Amino acid sequence: MRLATRRNGTRDGELVVVARSGSACASARSVAPTLQSALDDWTSAEPALRALSAELDSGRVLAEPLGVADLLSPLPRAYEWVDGSAFLSHVRLVRRARGAEPPAGLDTDPLVYQGGSGHLLGPSEDFPLADASWGLDFEGEIAVILGDVPEGTKAQDAAPTVRLLVLVNDWSLRGLVPAELSKGFGFFCSKPATSLSPFAVTPDELGAAYRGGRVHLPLSVRLNGVNVGQADAGEMHFSFFELIEHIARTRSFVAGTLLGSGTVSNDDPARGVSCLVERRAREQIELGSPRTPFLKPGDRVEIEMLDAGGWNVFGTLDARVAPRP
Amino acid sequence: MRLATRRNGTRDGELVVVARSGSACASARSVAPTLQSALDDWTSAEPALRALSAELDSGRVLAEPLGVADLLSPLPRAYEWVDGSAFLSHVRLVRRARGAEPPAGLDTDPLVYQGGSGHLLGPSEDFPLADASWGLDFEGEIAVILGDVPEGTKAQDAAPTVRLLVLVNDWSLRGLVPAELSKGFGFFCSKPATSLSPFAVTPDELGAAYRGGRVHLPLSVRLNGVNVGQADAGEMHFSFFELIEHIARTRSFVAGTLLGSGTVSNDDPARGVSCLVERRAREQIELGSPRTPFLKPGDRVEIEMLDAGGWNVFGTLDARVAPRP
Repeated sequence: MRLATRRNGTRDGELVVVARSGSACASARSVAPTLQSALDDWTSAEPALRALSAELDSGRVLAEPLGVADLLSPLPRAYEWVDGSAFLSHVRLVRRARGAEPPAGLDTDPLVYQGGSGHLLGPSEDFPLADASWGLDFEGEIAVILGDVPEGTKAQDAAPTVRLLVLVNDWSLRGLVPAELSKGFGFFCSKPATSLSPFAVTPDELGAAYRGGRVHLPLSVRLNGVNVGQADAGEMHFSFFELIEHIARTRSFVAGTLLGSGTVSNDDPARGVSCLVERRAREQIELGSPRTPFLKPGDRVEIEMLDAGGWNVFGTLDARVAPRP
Repeated sequence: MRLATRRNGTRDGELVVVARSGSACASARSVAPTLQSALDDWTSAEPALRALSAELDSGRVLAEPLGVADLLSPLPRAYEWVDGSAFLSHVRLVRRARGAEPPAGLDTDPLVYQGGSGHLLGPSEDFPLADASWGLDFEGEIAVILGDVPEGTKAQDAAPTVRLLVLVNDWSLRGLVPAELSKGFGFFCSKPATSLSPFAVTPDELGAAYRGGRVHLPLSVRLNGVNVGQADAGEMHFSFFELIEHIARTRSFVAGTLLGSGTVSNDDPARGVSCLVERRAREQIELGSPRTPFLKPGDRVEIEMLDAGGWNVFGTLDARVAPRP
């Protein structure tokens, strides 16, 4: 089942069920007005939404045309956005470029940060860039949307708390990172609003590619129409289940919490990159200095994930950088 | 006007208007079902809530009895919780105890961190402590609940975005802080759920004590019935307006965002402390080692703020530490 949130003039939009084609949908208002309300009562909402989805694909309910421009983020505002950094090649590469050692315990103690979740950008919404000197970068990620997670949940019990998956562009302002991290309290201004893919999908939409709390498919990233990355998301060191155990160590999480993988990244440089800072790091190591510039107004970043049959599971997250209005 | 959220079996509870006495209320269901829904449409909700409040205090609507045990957090779940560290004596004292210099730009560049907002504890809810070795501490703070804040909002334009004020106990797990901060991504497991005061109040309830984006009143903190702090919240170095300008530099915030002052702290040690780590820091400096233990199950922390007339503006945030069930 694939779900999306259609623009209707409200803060949370209208929940719709998406057809297999990706270009048609049916309103889910008979089940739940918004995705958050469905997540709040998932046990009863899920079977009703699945039934609606089956009716849509069999032509038993009227399909309405669906364009990505009609869509808000699946969750236009969420109660938490927790982002991991579970692809260790990303951490190692970025640290190596600045001559630093990877942090101790990198492969046993997950790195996560708490991001802002009040304003999540839709799948075709421009990213407003007020100052190009901030060094805007994209970060292609996969994320899960959780149900209620009690404090103390262990990895082996975490699978049922994963309700949906989405793709994420975790925009980052690289120029603001060093000064901010040196203050010791983590990212804040250097992590602006985050963009989500058109569709949020149940794990079964990924078939056998979703196993062990990881998605074993390549994440396609294009910059201005040119393919820059095809990294295998299955190379995630900590699974989503392990990340859930980590974040639930000292507190609980409510339904609708977004948990990200961190930038999808592979050891093999032939797989390309899911963010520019990795390419700049390789240039630094190989050429002595970075050559690839950060993003500027007009640049376009597309992120999508095709399954083994070439089906565009999450739709295409397709955003341009715009000057702030 | 003072607002609260009454337990009714739902995730967001029921919005009530609180009588001057603090022990009676009237349901606000005719205006907005929840505090978040009122904040979402504050321009129309505020005058209707103020009218209801006036009717309650003049006896024109039926007052229902109100006990703190009936209350959830004013916002049981919020879209963002951003916490500043705007009392510099707190930062200086804690750093001095560990022989470190205060960070560069301490008095010009605000320190903030992004906290978890999905599960906020009510004013009399036990804090569940799974492991006493984590070093549980309280942090008495004041916080504002914001309306929509556009990206780029400046301090001089920020006053109208402050909708309500609350008191906060920003529980902290001191034993988990050093290892977590050394990873460079800020707090996560070391900042568990946060507790809020019974009432969220409009700025006018504070009269002349609220000026320039600061609350010029002492914050009373009691540990197991013994007064431990009476720090003047007016000694806040960065005002809430300056904190708003800082956090809005690169992104916008939605209505219902919580923004905290950080631990209320004064240069004058006679004012006591709003957290144990400051007392331990003074012991470290004066006696060579900390003597005050962190919290254990059974301990009780009360936080309140009386105005110049002795009126308990926010009600008393009164929580006990309990072992995790």
